[in-house]
Amino acid sequence: MSQTAVADFGLIGLAVMGQNLILNGADKGFTVAAFNRTVSKVDRFLENEAKGKSIIGAHSIEEFVSLLKRPRRIVLLVKAGPAVDAFIEALVPHLEKGDIIVDGGNSHYPDTTRRCQELEKKGILFVGSGVSGGEEGARNGPSLMPGGNPAAWPHIKNIFQSLAAKAGDNEPCCDWVGQDGAGHYVKMVHNGIEYGDMQLICETYDMMTRGLGLSEAEVADIFDTWNKGKLDSYLIEITRDVLRYVADDGKPIVQKVLDSAGQKGTGKWTAENALEMGMPVTLISEAVFSRCLSSLKAERVRASEKLNGPKIEFSGDKKQFIDDLEEALYASKIISYAQGFMLMREAAKEYGWELNNAGIALMWRGGCIIRSVFLKDITEAFREDPKLESILFHPFFKNAIDKAQAGWRRVVAQAAMWGIPIPAISTGLAFYDGYRCPKLPASLLQAQRDYFGAHTFRILPEQATPKFPAGADIHVNWTGRGGDVSSSNYQA
Amino acid sequence: MSQTAVADFGLIGLAVMGQNLILNGADKGFTVAAFNRTVSKVDRFLENEAKGKSIIGAHSIEEFVSLLKRPRRIVLLVKAGPAVDAFIEALVPHLEKGDIIVDGGNSHYPDTTRRCQELEKKGILFVGSGVSGGEEGARNGPSLMPGGNPAAWPHIKNIFQSLAAKAGDNEPCCDWVGQDGAGHYVKMVHNGIEYGDMQLICETYDMMTRGLGLSEAEVADIFDTWNKGKLDSYLIEITRDVLRYVADDGKPIVQKVLDSAGQKGTGKWTAENALEMGMPVTLISEAVFSRCLSSLKAERVRASEKLNGPKIEFSGDKKQFIDDLEEALYASKIISYAQGFMLMREAAKEYGWELNNAGIALMWRGGCIIRSVFLKDITEAFREDPKLESILFHPFFKNAIDKAQAGWRRVVAQAAMWGIPIPAISTGLAFYDGYRCPKLPASLLQAQRDYFGAHTFRILPEQATPKFPAGADIHVNWTGRGGDVSSSNYQA
Repeated sequence: MSQTAVADFGLIGLAVMGQNLILNGADKGFTVAAFNRTVSKVDRFLENEAKGKSIIGAHSIEEFVSLLKRPRRIVLLVKAGPAVDAFIEALVPHLEKGDIIVDGGNSHYPDTTRRCQELEKKGILFVGSGVSGGEEGARNGPSLMPGGNPAAWPHIKNIFQSLAAKAGDNEPCCDWVGQDGAGHYVKMVHNGIEYGDMQLICETYDMMTRGLGLSEAEVADIFDTWNKGKLDSYLIEITRDVLRYVADDGKPIVQKVLDSAGQKGTGKWTAENALEMGMPVTLISEAVFSRCLSSLKAERVRASEKLNGPKIEFSGDKKQFIDDLEEALYASKIISYAQGFMLMREAAKEYGWELNNAGIALMWRGGCIIRSVFLKDITEAFREDPKLESILFHPFFKNAIDKAQAGWRRVVAQAAMWGIPIPAISTGLAFYDGYRCPKLPASLLQAQRDYFGAHTFRILPEQATPKFPAGADIHVNWTGRGGDVSSSNYQA
Repeated sequence: MSQTAVADFGLIGLAVMGQNLILNGADKGFTVAAFNRTVSKVDRFLENEAKGKSIIGAHSIEEFVSLLKRPRRIVLLVKAGPAVDAFIEALVPHLEKGDIIVDGGNSHYPDTTRRCQELEKKGILFVGSGVSGGEEGARNGPSLMPGGNPAAWPHIKNIFQSLAAKAGDNEPCCDWVGQDGAGHYVKMVHNGIEYGDMQLICETYDMMTRGLGLSEAEVADIFDTWNKGKLDSYLIEITRDVLRYVADDGKPIVQKVLDSAGQKGTGKWTAENALEMGMPVTLISEAVFSRCLSSLKAERVRASEKLNGPKIEFSGDKKQFIDDLEEALYASKIISYAQGFMLMREAAKEYGWELNNAGIALMWRGGCIIRSVFLKDITEAFREDPKLESILFHPFFKNAIDKAQAGWRRVVAQAAMWGIPIPAISTGLAFYDGYRCPKLPASLLQAQRDYFGAHTFRILPEQATPKFPAGADIHVNWTGRGGDVSSSNYQA
């Protein structure tokens, strides 16, 4: 308590990410206070990684708070859930009005909204910030997506933008996202998109190895080539590295990894939110479900012994088909991001946020797992036209899909004939074809619903008549047996 | 209050469904008491549809309760949500221990579980029952799926099984489902499956009209033929009728119906629950998302003016392709039901229910919207082997898919080349190919996650070595730069 308040910000939670973010801050010239519930971790950190740097440790919450300049800036990097509330509760008695708490964990955005509102009553400015980029991102510059109480932003802007990755013309991959849980919301969608990107890569890998019979080394070379073009991205780069990593027996380690993936995270939240918002975010959802299916490993092995499929053969032009796969991956990726931005558009409407699409794309442009050249193109599209309804409508992406679609279609068709599942690539194509379809067979569906449940339907404006006026809820007595009474209470 | 307690059961909520269920009860020889919050509806019902039948009306909750034999059996057919709680609250002061309240609305199953538990403390036996079949089902015999407090079942079994539809050898389409919200849970999955069935039909309709250029009348004839075979079902039957219904100008009305479908119902709940349970119920989810996409009508129209697709041409054998479509619809339907039963299997595990699969299939066999010959085959499969892990493993369905899959694959491939979206049929095929795949590319995904986030992976048991033991959480230092510390708190 006798120490002077010298720290520019403090961080609680000394797991790898927390340690790295502190080291990053020290590198950028900040003095950082460090605290951890298991206090021995503080000492270990100070004696090792933090040694000789502008990092000071605390052994109690009280001491930690006393080290901070005012307004105090405290970053929590602890496990999402009760731990966040527990630390907030422990901190608040030691804080003053105008102090700032930033939750940098993977909190669910409604929790962040709740915490913002609760703390605002106490005069504490709460921020929920998405932090992406894993260990390396935290160390060298993550993508930061802060949202919450806007009064906090002027006090943390310099620190956050200094910590963040830089992209393009030295622009920080960090900007204010919006009120309440907007920062964690955008991070959630980011993670959903990450699920999609990873699934798409896995599907092309499967098509190349099982379909075309290529080796991991050959596929790595292909990803290396793709990484020099429009697909240039961190995930393609690490896929190349992963495929080249061999075990002691000289075989690719990826062949030895258990094919069972977890999915209890933010990808699932994105899919659930899409359902809640009524937005067709099909690609991320299929990616989540693919992880679910992968986790049923024992059942799949039993199924593989019972269920038949076609023999996988290929007699065409391999080089051409590899190009087709690149186009399929690229076009599907465009769809996934288009769906993600559609979802954010709907959330902004629902919650009254003013999301800055160009800013979001820029924040994802560097530092984070989904960083890519592609996000530069999205940033530019939204800068050119901030009101762009869908990235699919921008000439750049429209032309990209035009160029890609013949190959994309061949890939989906070939996968069906081969019996290789590419649910994310396939649903991406189905979305594209549904989205550009002015008249879907939902007309039949509406008629069915009126037939069996008197749910009523509407008439196409151009087909309206005095008997079937536009905008009216119409019920037809389809059989002559049912009544003319329409149902409002029931869904059969 | 002076009237004798003569009614076998009482029903609150005189919308079409409620009126019809009362009339159904009177036909079966029961005396039924009727009540409605807007009391004038009671009088109108008694003077018209109920006239001359064993139906008595009440003008207050007190009077209504006084009309009922003990233990009192009260069926609520009111809008799901607060109305159910309001009526329970109004009823309870007039009830005695052992009286029974049945919620026959579309309540969400967690609400039913809560109500069961709250009312059990008061000695009231609560039941949540799925009721399906729309107006006609309610009138002539619905599918009834009761679950909740098992002490209620002996007292309502006779009434419920009398009201219910009969299938096959005069077996009632009603049996006890399980505890708590099990009845409403099974109804939720039923509705999800209904979403899937309807979407599959719409997709084949689209392929026949836009793809093959057939007229609504021609497609109706094809559905009529299909309805005589393995696809024999209520939904195929009404689709035929809908397609034959023409407006005053002689054109099929389905061409005039607005192609924008609602989706804020139980289908959405099923998809959300699938995500929550971690089960890949992809077909129903795609059906829900298809409704979402349909509802973006104005945006789709704008997209149709901007985005290109292939020209739809067909030069093959139409007859053969129509057969392919029948197989695609059938195989996809098998997948959808397989996924639905997988979900219920997981829910039963999660909630400690003992679901009777054969009983569930039998309940859906008649009376409800998804009634079909197909459900007879499922009932038989589960009767033959109650422990059947997946219906796909039963010889009947395994052979059906074997027979169907060549055509199914051709349909998915053709749709991709045509640019006609068939997301449900496509995802069904992708699921089949993923389910029967012993090794999915999730191995690559797990390696990626360990690369960027130190999330660890496991090794295939058959590939285990002392360095990479089976069952251990393994982290590899992929780049030589990251640490050897694995992350448990973070998902990047």
